[in-house]
Amino acid sequence: MVELMREALHTSVIDPVAASMNFLNEVAGRFPGAISLAAGRPYDEFYAVEDVDRYFGAYLAHLRCQGMPEEHVRQAILQYGRTNGQLGDMIARMLETDEDIRVPTSAVMVTTGCQEAMIITLRGLCAGPGDVVLAAEPCYVGLTGAARVLDIPVIGVPETSGGLRPETVARVAREVRASGRRPVALYVVSNFANPSGVSLTADVRRGLIETAAAEDLLILEDDPYGLFGLEDRRAPALKALDTERRVIYLGSFAKSVFPGARVGFLVADQPVISADGRRSLLADELSTIKSMITVNTSPIAQAVIGGVLVSCGYSLRAANSEKIAFYQRNLRALLAALERHFGADPAVGWNSPGGGFFAVLTTPVSADEKLLELSARDYGVLWTPMSFFYLDGGGTHAIRLSCSALTADQIDEGVRRLAALLAAVRL
Amino acid sequence: MVELMREALHTSVIDPVAASMNFLNEVAGRFPGAISLAAGRPYDEFYAVEDVDRYFGAYLAHLRCQGMPEEHVRQAILQYGRTNGQLGDMIARMLETDEDIRVPTSAVMVTTGCQEAMIITLRGLCAGPGDVVLAAEPCYVGLTGAARVLDIPVIGVPETSGGLRPETVARVAREVRASGRRPVALYVVSNFANPSGVSLTADVRRGLIETAAAEDLLILEDDPYGLFGLEDRRAPALKALDTERRVIYLGSFAKSVFPGARVGFLVADQPVISADGRRSLLADELSTIKSMITVNTSPIAQAVIGGVLVSCGYSLRAANSEKIAFYQRNLRALLAALERHFGADPAVGWNSPGGGFFAVLTTPVSADEKLLELSARDYGVLWTPMSFFYLDGGGTHAIRLSCSALTADQIDEGVRRLAALLAAVRL
Repeated sequence: MVELMREALHTSVIDPVAASMNFLNEVAGRFPGAISLAAGRPYDEFYAVEDVDRYFGAYLAHLRCQGMPEEHVRQAILQYGRTNGQLGDMIARMLETDEDIRVPTSAVMVTTGCQEAMIITLRGLCAGPGDVVLAAEPCYVGLTGAARVLDIPVIGVPETSGGLRPETVARVAREVRASGRRPVALYVVSNFANPSGVSLTADVRRGLIETAAAEDLLILEDDPYGLFGLEDRRAPALKALDTERRVIYLGSFAKSVFPGARVGFLVADQPVISADGRRSLLADELSTIKSMITVNTSPIAQAVIGGVLVSCGYSLRAANSEKIAFYQRNLRALLAALERHFGADPAVGWNSPGGGFFAVLTTPVSADEKLLELSARDYGVLWTPMSFFYLDGGGTHAIRLSCSALTADQIDEGVRRLAALLAAVRL
Repeated sequence: MVELMREALHTSVIDPVAASMNFLNEVAGRFPGAISLAAGRPYDEFYAVEDVDRYFGAYLAHLRCQGMPEEHVRQAILQYGRTNGQLGDMIARMLETDEDIRVPTSAVMVTTGCQEAMIITLRGLCAGPGDVVLAAEPCYVGLTGAARVLDIPVIGVPETSGGLRPETVARVAREVRASGRRPVALYVVSNFANPSGVSLTADVRRGLIETAAAEDLLILEDDPYGLFGLEDRRAPALKALDTERRVIYLGSFAKSVFPGARVGFLVADQPVISADGRRSLLADELSTIKSMITVNTSPIAQAVIGGVLVSCGYSLRAANSEKIAFYQRNLRALLAALERHFGADPAVGWNSPGGGFFAVLTTPVSADEKLLELSARDYGVLWTPMSFFYLDGGGTHAIRLSCSALTADQIDEGVRRLAALLAAVRL
C-alpha cells in the first residue's frame, strides 16, 4: 500500500500554527468541562435554525418583488452564478449605511467567508517570489494561513497599544525593499483586533493612509468586530478615508449574522490598467482567481445573507443591537473579572480593549502549551497562548482571553480559575 | 489615485484560458438568442427553489431523529463546524451504494464544490518547485486553473479515443523525472470527460492503477458525469479498483443535485506517516489547507445536500433516474443530429461518447474565436473551441458540443446551424 511521508507534503500541512490550534482543540476535547476563554466563536443563541428558512424566503420574496421571473429566480438559486456573486448591490448599500464607505457595486466580490477573500486578495496581488505582505503582529492566524498556502512570506510589523504606528510600517517597508523584496500590502484589523483587542486611533488611520501612499502599499483592512465597540462612537474605517483607493476592505458576516452561512466579501475598487490600455477594477480581475478556487459562493448561502440584509434595511448595526449589548456586557465582565482577580497582583497585567471579543493578559510565567495542559486538567480553564500569533517568536508571557461564547458568570469563574493557576505555578 | 498594472498581478489573473472563457461569455452575452452548444451546465428544470427548504428540513429531521439535542442541531447549522464537514458518513454510504467504493468516513472531506477539492489536493501534494501534475489532454479547465493559482505546472498526457493509454502515462512520467522534476499525480476524468466525452475502458483503468504503482504516482479521479451513461453498465471507478490506495476521488453534486449548493468532496484514504512515526489519513492532513482556504463548507449548503442524500436512501443513481433519461435523450439527439447534418460530409468527423454532456466535432477549418464570433452573429449558434482545453497548442480544428442545457429540438436546430456555418466558410 502507498505510504506518504508527511514531511514531503506542502509546508502548509505542517504549519506550526495549525499544529498549535490542533493542540488547543485536542486539549479542549479532553477536558470538555473546562471553561473556554480560548473559543473566539460568536455566541450562538441569537438565532434558531428556523431563521435560515425565514431569511431564505425573505430573499426570494425580494427577488420576486423586484419583478424577477420565476425561471430566473430558480436559476439564481440553483445554478452556477456570477463568479463575484449576487449581493454586491446589497453589500454596497450596507457599507454606505453602516460605515460611510461608498463604492460601486462592481467593486464588491462575495466570497466563501472572509478567509476566501484573504486568499484571493493575496493571490492576485503577490505575483513573484520577491513579493511579501506586511501584517500587524501579533497577527490573525487566518491571514498567515492563507499566505502559507500560497508560499507568500508575511513580515510582522509590531503593534503598540494604539495599534500599528505608521512610521514603523514605513520602516519595515523600506527594510523589505532594501532586502530586494517588494512589500505589496499591509494587513490590519482596524477595530478590536484578533488576538490583541487593539484598535487604531483616528490619527493612526490617517497616518496609515499617508504611509501607504508614500511607500506604495495597499492596505488590507479586515473588520469583523467593528460593530461590537463598548462606545457608540468609533474612528472611521480606513476604507472610508481612502481617497486614493489604496484600501481593499475584507468583510465577514460570521459575527454580525452567523458563521454557518460562510459568506464574506471583499471590496477592491482599485483601477487596473492592461498593457493594451483597457481599464477594469481589481474586483473584476480577482474574479478569475475566485473562479479557480470555488467557482462562486453558494447562492443558497448568499440568499440567506441577502435575506438578512433585506430584512434589516441594509444596516447590520441596527440589526445587531441585541448582540452588541451582549458582547459589551461580556467584555465589561471580562475586564471587571480581571480587576477583581488580578488587581492586587503587580506581576500580572492586561489591556483594556474598547470593544470586541478579546483581551490580552501578560503573565509572570511562560504561557506555553505545558501550562495550558495543566490549566485545563487541574484548573478547568482554557485560553490561547499569545505565542500562536507571532511569526518568529514572541508572546511567550501572554495569554489571549476570549469572552464571546460565554455568559458573564462563566467569564468571572474562568478568570478566577486562571488566577488560581497563576498563583499556584509561582509558589 | 493608485493604478495597478494588470501585468504585475499574479499570472492566474492573466490566464489565457480565463480570457478565452470570458470571450465566450461575452459573445454569448451579445447574442442572447443564439442556441448554446457551448454551455455545459446542467439543465435546471429538475428542481424548484422550494426544494431547498424541503431538503434542508429533511436534514434537520434526520439529525433530530438520531437524537441530536436541539442545541447541537443549531450549532451544526449556524456555527463554524468541523473543517472536513459533516456529511462524511453519508457520502461514504453513497459511494458504497452507487460506486462500490468502500472508504472510511474519516477519508471524506466535504468541499466548497469540486473546484475546492482540486485546489486542496494539488496544494497538499505539490510541495516544491519541481513538483508537477500530469493530466489527460485535452484537459478540464478547472484543473488547470487550480494549478495555475498555485504555480504548479500541468503536463499533458495525450488522450486517445479509449481515454489515456497507461503506457503513455508511464512515458510522460519518466520524461518528467528525467528532466529533474517529480510527477506527483495524474488527473483524469474517468467517465465521459469534459471536454472530450471520452471514457476509460475497464482494461485501461486496471492498467492505470498498475502504472501508478510502477511510476509512484497518485491518481486524481474526477467523475462528475458517471451517472449519465447511455447504457446502465459501465466500467468500475478507478477508486473501486484501488487496492493500493493510489486514487484520490474528487466528487461533485453539481450535476447529480444542483450547482447552487456548491458542495463537493474528496476522498483521500492514503496513509500518511510523520517523522515521529505518527500515522494519519491524507484527508486529515489536507484539512489544515481547507481551513486556510474556506475554513469549512457552509453547513447550510451541506444540510441541503445531506437532505437529498437522506431522501434518496444514499443512492444518487436511484434519485437521478429522471435526469439520466433526460441526458441520455439529449446525447442521442446530439449524435442523431450530427449524423443527419454532417453524415454526408467526409471532411467533418465526430466521436460517439457513451454518455455525459459532451461530444467533439472535428472541422476542416480552424475553429477559432473569429469563427465563433461569425457563428454567433450570422448563424445563431455557440460552441466551444477545443483549443481552450489544450495546454500548449492543439485542438485548432475541433469543437466541443454540449447538449446538457437544451431540449432535443434545440440541439437539432443548433447542429443544423453549425452545419450551415461550416458549409458557408468552405465556399
